[in-house]
Amino acid sequence: MPLPASFGSRLSATFVEFGHLCVGIDPHPHLLGEWGLSDSADSLMTFGKTVIEACAGRVGIIKPQVAFFERHGSKGFAVLEQLAEIAQTAKLLVIMDAKRGDIGTTMDGYYDAWLGKSAPFVADALTVSPFLGFDSLLPMLSQSHERGKGVFVLAATSNPEAAEVQQASLGSSQVAANVWRKLGKANQAVDGDRMGSFGAVIGATVDPANFGISFEEAASTPILAPGFGAQGALLSQFSRLFASAADRTIATVSRSVLAGGSINLETNVLAAKDDLKSTSRIGGLDE
Amino acid sequence: MPLPASFGSRLSATFVEFGHLCVGIDPHPHLLGEWGLSDSADSLMTFGKTVIEACAGRVGIIKPQVAFFERHGSKGFAVLEQLAEIAQTAKLLVIMDAKRGDIGTTMDGYYDAWLGKSAPFVADALTVSPFLGFDSLLPMLSQSHERGKGVFVLAATSNPEAAEVQQASLGSSQVAANVWRKLGKANQAVDGDRMGSFGAVIGATVDPANFGISFEEAASTPILAPGFGAQGALLSQFSRLFASAADRTIATVSRSVLAGGSINLETNVLAAKDDLKSTSRIGGLDE
Repeated sequence: MPLPASFGSRLSATFVEFGHLCVGIDPHPHLLGEWGLSDSADSLMTFGKTVIEACAGRVGIIKPQVAFFERHGSKGFAVLEQLAEIAQTAKLLVIMDAKRGDIGTTMDGYYDAWLGKSAPFVADALTVSPFLGFDSLLPMLSQSHERGKGVFVLAATSNPEAAEVQQASLGSSQVAANVWRKLGKANQAVDGDRMGSFGAVIGATVDPANFGISFEEAASTPILAPGFGAQGALLSQFSRLFASAADRTIATVSRSVLAGGSINLETNVLAAKDDLKSTSRIGGLDE
Repeated sequence: MPLPASFGSRLSATFVEFGHLCVGIDPHPHLLGEWGLSDSADSLMTFGKTVIEACAGRVGIIKPQVAFFERHGSKGFAVLEQLAEIAQTAKLLVIMDAKRGDIGTTMDGYYDAWLGKSAPFVADALTVSPFLGFDSLLPMLSQSHERGKGVFVLAATSNPEAAEVQQASLGSSQVAANVWRKLGKANQAVDGDRMGSFGAVIGATVDPANFGISFEEAASTPILAPGFGAQGALLSQFSRLFASAADRTIATVSRSVLAGGSINLETNVLAAKDDLKSTSRIGGLDE
């Protein structure tokens, strides 16, 4: 049986068609309030569908923040199942932001939930945590490859308190750099120089050098970059920030686009897309 | 309003009444098969209720492995909600093994889900991951304290591939040791020398010295210790392995007790309890 199209190849096609923007679905209770919605599972559906409708045909990628569904328990998760289906129908790539991480058969459980053949939550990719060691994720990477799914591994996040873990060293290698290099090897092994399906989460506000990360290494590894908008990085600085990696980086926005209610959403999404386009000419031409 | 009884105080009382054993609820598809159950959400209920019934009045603590519910989507989570209620009624302490970790309002979402006032999943404690920095967990610790809830932070896990992260150093401090020391300070700050409510996950098969952890430090910090049974550590070695920390350590077993089907469960639970009791005289008297 031939392999399905890889996540990396679908991501490449999405970049060409819609650019590098990814819109978060973060139904934070405060945002629900701004939208005039109650803090309930039903509101998650209204919120999520509205974001999907505003993105469909304009943006290629959405990223639901699982914690905001989880806080509504099984009812919240039932909404997430439905939203994932709706997003697939709208031809959006869905990256589930769950930051799961465990070992062995337990990690297999998370694979089954989000990326497996009968996954109740239909995702194109999942964010995961390497605290139990990068190699504890290898079975998930291998399984994901077989199904054309993607995995984004936390590497260098934008919150300052993360430095004590992610910048720590074993031997000559910093934790984040080790994740980055191992992702590079994993991608090279299955996809050569084509866009890989195993990405790193690297915050837009961090200096990768502080984490020992060089974008010249792992040259086919995609990056999921939160930190734009409310967290401080400017979409207009995208090419400068990600330099040679910009052509494989996803710029995610959420609060900056979602704040202000559903009435401003479409305008905000298009403005973010324009901001990103204005300086995202790949190759650093905007410098 | 007075604070509710702390998780640490309830844990102490549980140790006195039932000992240090914790039984995992790990409805792995292979185990469901051994039990003659199909791989479905309904089976999770049968499995979970059977484990709870075998534990009630015999063992003080259960630890559902969330991934095995998550793989059944919203239906699996609905079962977990119900099992949590049943376990509370059976007066079992419930530690949800979810290894969640995120920052800011997203972490608040996980708090709301598992430990908050209206949490759909009623837990006494939650396992979390410090990959985004121990300090990213501080708001959750503070909120948990107010509600008498516990938090167990991954520190030194039993899988060998974890060393590259957990044994890494920033300055003179290893990642796991840093977690351990910060837990000690957080417990000291709110509970002094009484049993703390913020624990560390330390595998029974690891040598804490390799992670820079000294049990003499953080002397009121509880430990959640997987790794007994199927993973190789012997319950009969409990006191030797955890030495001066044994009186605040939870020994968790799952596969070794759950394998062999429901028919052997009660016998297995009692045997594990006896194994642990046989050498768990606190203070190292068995040496």
